[in-house]
Amino acid sequence: MVALPTAGAGERVEHADELLARVVAGVPGGGPQRPEPRLVDLVEVRQHQVVLAREVLVEGRPPRTGFDMRIAVLGTGMVGRAIAARAAELGHEVTVGTRDVAATRAGDWADWAASHPRVGLAGHADATRGSELVVNATSGAGSLTALAAAGEENLAGKVLLDIANPLDFGNGFPPTLSVLNDDSLGERIQRAFPRTRVVKALNTLTADLMTHPRQLADGDHSVFVCGDDPDAKKTVAELLADFGHTDVIDLSDITTARGTEMLLPLWLRLYGKLGTGIFNIKVVR
Amino acid sequence: MVALPTAGAGERVEHADELLARVVAGVPGGGPQRPEPRLVDLVEVRQHQVVLAREVLVEGRPPRTGFDMRIAVLGTGMVGRAIAARAAELGHEVTVGTRDVAATRAGDWADWAASHPRVGLAGHADATRGSELVVNATSGAGSLTALAAAGEENLAGKVLLDIANPLDFGNGFPPTLSVLNDDSLGERIQRAFPRTRVVKALNTLTADLMTHPRQLADGDHSVFVCGDDPDAKKTVAELLADFGHTDVIDLSDITTARGTEMLLPLWLRLYGKLGTGIFNIKVVR
Repeated sequence: MVALPTAGAGERVEHADELLARVVAGVPGGGPQRPEPRLVDLVEVRQHQVVLAREVLVEGRPPRTGFDMRIAVLGTGMVGRAIAARAAELGHEVTVGTRDVAATRAGDWADWAASHPRVGLAGHADATRGSELVVNATSGAGSLTALAAAGEENLAGKVLLDIANPLDFGNGFPPTLSVLNDDSLGERIQRAFPRTRVVKALNTLTADLMTHPRQLADGDHSVFVCGDDPDAKKTVAELLADFGHTDVIDLSDITTARGTEMLLPLWLRLYGKLGTGIFNIKVVR
Repeated sequence: MVALPTAGAGERVEHADELLARVVAGVPGGGPQRPEPRLVDLVEVRQHQVVLAREVLVEGRPPRTGFDMRIAVLGTGMVGRAIAARAAELGHEVTVGTRDVAATRAGDWADWAASHPRVGLAGHADATRGSELVVNATSGAGSLTALAAAGEENLAGKVLLDIANPLDFGNGFPPTLSVLNDDSLGERIQRAFPRTRVVKALNTLTADLMTHPRQLADGDHSVFVCGDDPDAKKTVAELLADFGHTDVIDLSDITTARGTEMLLPLWLRLYGKLGTGIFNIKVVR
């Protein structure tokens, strides 16, 4: 795949034609000072142009960098489907992981899968094995079990984007947290899988805003990354930027996940107050 | 005191002269259709003009409505001093409450008091007895003791603005919370003083921003009120608006204080990250 140009920080490309011109200028062999572009490059460029132009025109976001990954999304619920759909839309190769493939297929998966033909389905281990980045989109109560099923060896060395919140619904609504204060689910996962590079992120907002942040205030709100591995945080931050996030704050090591997980009680009360999950916090500074 | 005019919502008065004209026009006997203003009115107006003009020019805020209260501020630390100074500046009659008046006077109080001559100092009970509104600006660990010293009878029926956070520094920095998840300090105080109308507020930002929010993004950020008594929340929300807050969110009953107190771990990490306390969250919706 050719390397694709990006718009500058804060810059918007308003027209698909302008974008195509930039794309052609940016590819090997493209641009006025360069030899005639080879046909194979232009075919690839034109395929990308459709996706990129749609992103720029519909989303108002700069085109992504063309760095595609094989992503395993563990969890078939609302969060898992939202992440899988968005990542596939952006050109990543996505496989959703589930505890029981047959049971998932027997549920409402078929309808969803029909409209997302590029997203695969596999058991947790199979989905994780071939992936470069793993997303934990399971419920907090089931996360450690799901990750154990994915396999310590399959997770070793990989970036794990952990979105889960340790919500405990045992005493009704609003739920409390099952781990907090001097520990967090993110830390528990990092301790259980020390060879995996855990990054806590996106657990502070509703699924539709995780993946389409520009629908609210043109993306003028904040998300966080927490983790011990700077490169892993950079990879996740780039994915978040591709989703449309404009303010990704690196809070520091994985213990900072306590802060983002403990935001949930406030989030839940705001959800009750506002009557919608389409809100987020912005760190004004 | 004469009733003072206010600027309309969102309106800014740019010049002291314009403000003085409005003040004179608004007082009994002022304005073109009215008889010559009496001298005593004008003297009062001119005294107010200095304060109001400073607020309008320096703070960019509309002048307050002239509803003054006797306020007891329990706690002589940074938060207590900030609230006391600001409330006095706004024309409220303020007495700071302390556990030991002699010990407070023997400390660095004298310097502060010299530059805040309108703020009184008394024991917790004496300060609270004559007040209409009480502010808990003590440390979270000492709040219940300080309020017990203020006296259940003295607190009965009154609005208590509770700013304290239940921070536990027993394990170093960052502190953990000593009460959370299925309880909060705000709730403990409400249970201990059932005749007092507790409103949790302002515990989510640094003292200087509590009292001068317009210094950051012209006040475009959020604060919360949590409490069981709607009138008490209204009183506190009005005081917060007088401080300059533009987005005061009523989260609901006192149990919602769990959410704002549990924001502290994220606040503390952001403080470490940003290297300043002059930041706040905005609820973007």
